[in-house]
This record gives sequence, structure tokens and C-alpha cells, in this order.
Amino acid sequence: MPNMRKIAELAGVSIATVSRYINNNGYVSDEVREKIQKIIDEENYRPNELARSIFRKSSKTIGLMVPNISNPFFNQMALIIEKYANDKGYSIFLCNTEDNSDKEKKYIDILQSHRVAGIIIARSQCKEEYASLDIPIIAFENHISENIITVSTDNYEGGRIAFEHLYHSGCRNILHVKGPSAFEATQARYKGFFDAAKDTGLSIDTFEFETDFQVKMLEENMSDINKISTYDGIFVFNDIAASVIMKFLTTNHMDIPKDVQIIGFDNSFISQVLQPSLTTINQPVQEIGKKIIKLLIKLIENERVEVKDYIFKPELIKRETTK
Amino acid sequence: MPNMRKIAELAGVSIATVSRYINNNGYVSDEVREKIQKIIDEENYRPNELARSIFRKSSKTIGLMVPNISNPFFNQMALIIEKYANDKGYSIFLCNTEDNSDKEKKYIDILQSHRVAGIIIARSQCKEEYASLDIPIIAFENHISENIITVSTDNYEGGRIAFEHLYHSGCRNILHVKGPSAFEATQARYKGFFDAAKDTGLSIDTFEFETDFQVKMLEENMSDINKISTYDGIFVFNDIAASVIMKFLTTNHMDIPKDVQIIGFDNSFISQVLQPSLTTINQPVQEIGKKIIKLLIKLIENERVEVKDYIFKPELIKRETTK
Repeated sequence: MPNMRKIAELAGVSIATVSRYINNNGYVSDEVREKIQKIIDEENYRPNELARSIFRKSSKTIGLMVPNISNPFFNQMALIIEKYANDKGYSIFLCNTEDNSDKEKKYIDILQSHRVAGIIIARSQCKEEYASLDIPIIAFENHISENIITVSTDNYEGGRIAFEHLYHSGCRNILHVKGPSAFEATQARYKGFFDAAKDTGLSIDTFEFETDFQVKMLEENMSDINKISTYDGIFVFNDIAASVIMKFLTTNHMDIPKDVQIIGFDNSFISQVLQPSLTTINQPVQEIGKKIIKLLIKLIENERVEVKDYIFKPELIKRETTK
Repeated sequence: MPNMRKIAELAGVSIATVSRYINNNGYVSDEVREKIQKIIDEENYRPNELARSIFRKSSKTIGLMVPNISNPFFNQMALIIEKYANDKGYSIFLCNTEDNSDKEKKYIDILQSHRVAGIIIARSQCKEEYASLDIPIIAFENHISENIITVSTDNYEGGRIAFEHLYHSGCRNILHVKGPSAFEATQARYKGFFDAAKDTGLSIDTFEFETDFQVKMLEENMSDINKISTYDGIFVFNDIAASVIMKFLTTNHMDIPKDVQIIGFDNSFISQVLQPSLTTINQPVQEIGKKIIKLLIKLIENERVEVKDYIFKPELIKRETTK
């Protein structure tokens, strides 16, 4: 690809003029504009974003770390973040941490090397690694430190809503299928569910999944899942895990919601296509994604932003798996 | 962040020594290594990948364009590509084209500005835009030109397998729910299905979806879908669309597979959790993702690669929606 010097040479103007035209920061006559653009088109010239980035000491790039881009919640979030970032002139580096702190550390290094303008970290498994970083950061779900903004749904409240719905639908023998303890969100859902149960005087059982979204969930947890058939109400920490539980129950001739009622979490697309369709707790993923990227870009552009938790309201989506 | 000069100063060695140590291209004594690493740790120094990239005239980055990262097939592919690329020292720019040629063109420009080392484009809606590009490219599904490698599943064969399975399972009144015509893959599935039907003397009906993966599919196509209940066998162009059709049929009290048999395409995770579980045609997404990124890195590193179509074998996965 030609450089700016070459374009200037071919257009018969100075490099400064080409620079003014490309960066749109000074007068260039219409005639000269046309001449330069013609050469740019002919030579298929694209400004060197790397050179610009070195000059700015950061690049128009953002690092997006998610546990796993196959998880429907995180890929919906990524879609929204990428779209908005792109509109604002930023490109997104995709990083899958697999909830592994070593991988996350490695990505922090890589993103620093690329001089990203900012980092979004969903469900971080690191803390002190961010302390020395002089880059705007937004955390989703897991908190990192007091200086770093965290965005999340009110998962505690979501857990409470889930319990109250099962209880009011007549369930008295209730199980919570809980996500991994290292996730603040699934811990908070558990806590909210547990506290709401305590308020009614009911005790609940729990069963913990060791992984989040994995297709192999089905097989791995099958033997442990057996005792699940004895409950009349089950709150599962996310929709995918709920779909796995539902599959197990219907395969074992349990009727949902007659024999057992189920409620998931996330309101991901799968909840609509399951048969029966899944009652769930909505996380407003569109609003969450937009808030995250908007806050980050404000930080990058040195706008004033209040450092605090930004919390979104969960909402019951009543479908067919509860009465 | 400090630069290399600062590190050299603090370690009391020359910049050349620091450079030799960081780039691992020359002798540095153990004692000096230790001294430099100590300063690097203290100062939280990360080599400037942008500066290195300018020197190399390309960066250790790859542009990955997919229609929509929410589509389970593409996010599984992205996961594999990102993982392998990362192992090889490359970072991935994520771009969602929404099957929109204007968006794709814009991303081509952006990726060029970032001086990416290579581009992966899944289901391209552009052709001539790539002609002038002096960057290694791998296409998935939609062909771009004779000089550009295309990787795909044998979708024609997949369509044939789908028909033969429905036919041998006793279906005689068959519908194909077809994906958008702009997708080579869904066209080929249709063609294979159609040709296999012709071989048996059976004619089939078709119904075309205008979008690929959209959660709103369900509502949008509901009214048109009504006539679907008259068939005894349906081949749907992907698993998500199949799940939408299944939901419609079961809601309308049709028994699957007794009244109507269904076969999807992709073998995405959803096919396992549906009730009944979905018979489908497997695309080996792991192998496809690995092949794409391996070929691209070979091209980037100037290894010999044969420019041709790399085709993967589809496979019937028999589950519960067919007899």
C-alpha cells in the first residue's frame, strides 16, 4: 500500500495538504480535495491507523474479554458493544478468558501491547493485575476494585423474584441449581433466592454446577441430576442450564409445569423456543451492553463519569414452565 | 507507561540490550536479564506492539468478519479461531457484518487501516472490494474470487442426506424451509435436497426465510408459517429456524415425529436440548474453524498453500424428531 508521501507525490501537492485532507483539520480547496481523493481511490490508500495510534499513544481499539463467546448472554452483549463501538470509530479485540485467571492475565498483557484505548472485562477472575493499569476499564458482574466501575443486573433481586414466583405458583419443595461460586452474579442470585425463602420459613436445597455454559453440561451432570426429579419447583442459574434440566426431566416423563415448575435466568433466545417455553428472569442485555460501552468511551474521552456500580433491574418473564 | 529508553536507563544498560532481551534476538547475560526483568515488572512495561507492527508493516492482528456473533454456528467458529490465533500470537478484531455489503466494505477499510495481517470473511456479500487487497484472506461459505481460498461444508451433499433421511423415514409430503438466496450455503442445501427429491420422482414445496438467525424470526414468520402443518416431513436450513418451526408445530398440537418429522442443519447445541431433540446435519465446526485459521496463518507466514476449495463432509445426526 502507498504511504501519504506517495499520495502527495502523485497528486502533485504537499504531504501537509494530504494530511490536512485526510485528517480533516485545515483548509483544502475543493479542486485539490478532488485530486487527492482520485489518487487515494486509484491507489487504494488507507491511512495507517498504527502510525496515528503511536502519535496518540493509544489506538482506536478496545479489548473485550468475555468468558466464552458461545454463551448466548455474552455474545448478545458483544454484538451490541461491537456495534456501538464501531459507530464511534473503535474496533474490538475479542478475548475468551474461559473464566481462567491465567488466560485473563495473558490477555491483559496482550491488550496493553496493542495500546488499547480501553478494556471491558466480563466476569473478571483477576484483581491486582488491574491496579497498575493506566487504561480505562469497565467491569461486568465481578468487581475488581473501588476505582473501577462495575455494571451488572441486580442479581440478588433477580433471585428474590424467582423464589417469590415459584412460591406464589404453589411450589413448596424447592431446589436451586446454582452456578459456580467464583461468579458474583450466580452467588447473588443464590443469596437472593435463599433470603426470600427464609422470609417464608421454607428451606431450599441447592445443587451446584461447576461450569457455566458448556454443551457437555448435559452428560457431565446427568448422574448427579437424578435426585432432581423429587422437587416441585426448580430455579436454575441460567437459561442454558435450565434447558438441560428440562431435557432431563421430560426424558424421564416428568410433566412441566404440572409435576415440576422451572424458572431460568437471562431471557436468552433459547427460552422462547423451548417446549414448554421457559419462564425466566430478564437481564436487559441491550441496555447493559450500551451502558458498558458508553461509559468506557466517556472514560477514554476524558468525560466526567461517576465511579460507582451501575445496576440494572431484573424482570420476571412469565412463560409456560410455571403455573 | 515507560518506554524502552526508560527501562534501559533504570536498569543501567543500553537500549540495544533491552531490545535484545525483549525480542530475544541476541546474547544477554543472566545477571542483566534479571536486572531488566525486575525493572520491567516494577514499571509494568509492555512492549509497544504498534511500533513493532509499523516496523513489520503489518500487525499481529487478524480481522474476523461474521454475519452476527449471536448466531450459534458463527460464535462457535469464532471461539475456535480466536483460541488458535491467540496461541500463535495473533489477536482478533471482531466485526459483525449483518450480511450487509456496505458494512462489510466499511470493515474492509477499517481492517486495512489497522494493517491487519490477514482477514477471515464468513459469508461475504462483496467481491471486487477484495481484488485490490494485498492481504491474505480466507473466505467461509460465500466465494469471493479464484485467488481466494474458500472453506465450507459440502452443503449440497448435506441437502441430499437430509432428503434421503426424510424419505427413508417414510415422508412423502415434504417441505423445505429455505434460507436467504444470497447465502451460497443455504442455496446449495436447497439444491441438494431438491435434486435428491427429483431422483425419487417426488416434488417438494419450499418456503423461504428472509433472514438468517434472528430471535424475532418467531413472530415475523408466524402468519406465513401456518400452512406448514400440512406436511409430514420438513427440512429446515438451520437448527435455530428448525426450533422456531418446532415450537410453532407443538403449540398447534402437532406431534413430532408422529405427525411431522423435522430435520435441521448445523448440529448446534440447541439441537440437543430441544424436546424432542432435533435430528440434524452436522457441520464439523471445530475442524472448519481450525482449518480456516491454520490456512490463514500459513498464508501470512508465506508458507505454501494450495488455492482451492477446502470442503468438509456433512453428517446425519439422528435424534428424536425423525423416525
